[in-house]
Amino acid sequence: MAPVKNAKSVFAAIPEDYPVPGKHIVYDDKDTIDPDTAALNGGVLVKVLFLSIDPYLRGRMQPSNFSSYIPSFELGQPLVNFGVGVVVRSEDKAFKAGDHVYGLIPFQQYIIVPGAILRVLPNTHNIPWSVYVGSAGMPGMTAYAAWNEYADVKPGDVVFVSTGAGAVGSLVVQIAKMAGCKVIASAGSEEKVKFMKEIGVDVPFNYKTENTAEILKREGPINVFWDNVGGETLEAAMDNAADGARIIACGAISGYNTGTKPIHNWDIVFRKSLHIHGFIVSRIQDKYLDSFYKEVPEWIATGKVKIREEIAEGLEKVGDLFVAVQKGYNTGKAVIKVADE
Amino acid sequence: MAPVKNAKSVFAAIPEDYPVPGKHIVYDDKDTIDPDTAALNGGVLVKVLFLSIDPYLRGRMQPSNFSSYIPSFELGQPLVNFGVGVVVRSEDKAFKAGDHVYGLIPFQQYIIVPGAILRVLPNTHNIPWSVYVGSAGMPGMTAYAAWNEYADVKPGDVVFVSTGAGAVGSLVVQIAKMAGCKVIASAGSEEKVKFMKEIGVDVPFNYKTENTAEILKREGPINVFWDNVGGETLEAAMDNAADGARIIACGAISGYNTGTKPIHNWDIVFRKSLHIHGFIVSRIQDKYLDSFYKEVPEWIATGKVKIREEIAEGLEKVGDLFVAVQKGYNTGKAVIKVADE
Repeated sequence: MAPVKNAKSVFAAIPEDYPVPGKHIVYDDKDTIDPDTAALNGGVLVKVLFLSIDPYLRGRMQPSNFSSYIPSFELGQPLVNFGVGVVVRSEDKAFKAGDHVYGLIPFQQYIIVPGAILRVLPNTHNIPWSVYVGSAGMPGMTAYAAWNEYADVKPGDVVFVSTGAGAVGSLVVQIAKMAGCKVIASAGSEEKVKFMKEIGVDVPFNYKTENTAEILKREGPINVFWDNVGGETLEAAMDNAADGARIIACGAISGYNTGTKPIHNWDIVFRKSLHIHGFIVSRIQDKYLDSFYKEVPEWIATGKVKIREEIAEGLEKVGDLFVAVQKGYNTGKAVIKVADE
Repeated sequence: MAPVKNAKSVFAAIPEDYPVPGKHIVYDDKDTIDPDTAALNGGVLVKVLFLSIDPYLRGRMQPSNFSSYIPSFELGQPLVNFGVGVVVRSEDKAFKAGDHVYGLIPFQQYIIVPGAILRVLPNTHNIPWSVYVGSAGMPGMTAYAAWNEYADVKPGDVVFVSTGAGAVGSLVVQIAKMAGCKVIASAGSEEKVKFMKEIGVDVPFNYKTENTAEILKREGPINVFWDNVGGETLEAAMDNAADGARIIACGAISGYNTGTKPIHNWDIVFRKSLHIHGFIVSRIQDKYLDSFYKEVPEWIATGKVKIREEIAEGLEKVGDLFVAVQKGYNTGKAVIKVADE
């Protein structure tokens, strides 16, 4: 086989606020690769099929000396995130051509990586491969592991989920309903509100047209707040929390691009005996790996859990989809389809 | 016995910021009582000996419709807080004349209260009665119960205590040392720094003359932050927390009089997987009551735990001592001695 193009999506510059496609995230198709002959050095050649675009990625667009739980992207190199691919060739005995694999991988059409970063996906339930970067991937594990670790609910508890139509939030909502909770959830468009209704949210609302604090006051007090937003939404949740409520601090997209929003009602933390659990999914997932892959793909296959994807085709679309996710313009789990099998 | 004066310290007006003695807290000696004949209505007549002045009391100086974990003081009525007294007469069989009792009681020389709000103090270890409103009372229980409930330390963990010379903080410090931790603690005067050295603090410092963030950066990262302060101190602790650190949110005196201080680095909560536990001691103390009264008075009697009190004589002093505690000017656990036995 002659060399083929091996396009990539590169982290080209550090953004000040929202990244700009073509400036901070650049599509580059100058590389080539010969899949038949490229040296593997003991590793695995993977043809990349799907790549995930997640809110947290903005946090990796920092100078290289920025201290965080995960290193910054390397300037001039491809972005890196969870993806699914198919093995073309392997010098690692744990993988064979045709295996579908999942891992934290570079944004490029063909990659040569150590087998240690990959997990073979048996896909017993025959769900679409793209779902393994969504509800059956890192975002799903985020919802599943942290809910089981921290929510501590009993039937009838009131749960509020911000970004309830998102990749993480929509699974939180559905797990909370399985646990017998009353679920309030917010999102930023009527279309997302409609989806939240479909997945069983008792009180779905559009935070752009309705007042979050008023709704929580009317429908609360809340026993669990799953926070993907921070800022004023978090303040409203604290003001309307029940005594002893749990706040699961998953993220705070209100501050990712324009600076962390201050919290003005800290006194509520002790006044209401709140328990706040911040987490990074990679630190808590190990004990849930087996049950997650046993339960969640089946839930999706049987329709017990509904999902919604927004799939853009081609690495050229990475920049636009990335910004859409930061601004909440995507209408489902944001996925880049890199190639057909 | 003829009627005697029955002076009291009254909540007279709602303060905007720091309360002013004589305006918001007023000494009033117009009441009288005849201890021999006053009607008890099934209750207990107590001669009050010691009353506690604690930081949290500022939170009870709110309009009556203010929603909190504890009702506001009633305008025109005596302040109420933990105190120790001696029973003069009782119509409740659980109490007899001469018993020393502890409870949440009005600021007046003689009080008639239901027995249900009182606890008899056996004082097996013969420590001063005043200590039962300090390290062997609510502030001590605050330290003891929340430490046992939330600190989750192993030897060598680094603990930071704000107000390390205070009634609560000084016991936290000493319990943390018993657990084999390295203890950093802050206070607002050289004299308090000296006391913190005496009780075993490894890194005592004066936050008014040294930079909290620099010290935490040098001596941390910290595994547990015991927060009595909030505001910038809390922000500095979060910035210098270890991954998975616990923050025990006991109070936030930086905001009690002048408004809650905002927290600007909320993103640290998930970046560092912090676990924040707000609490109100009355909600968590039940399971610790027996072990607390078994252990802590003995620790004090044997000198295993050191205490420091600032005792002001007479209900006339309530206003001044109250303000001193809000401003951090007191040099030990603030106690009003109401009467000799």
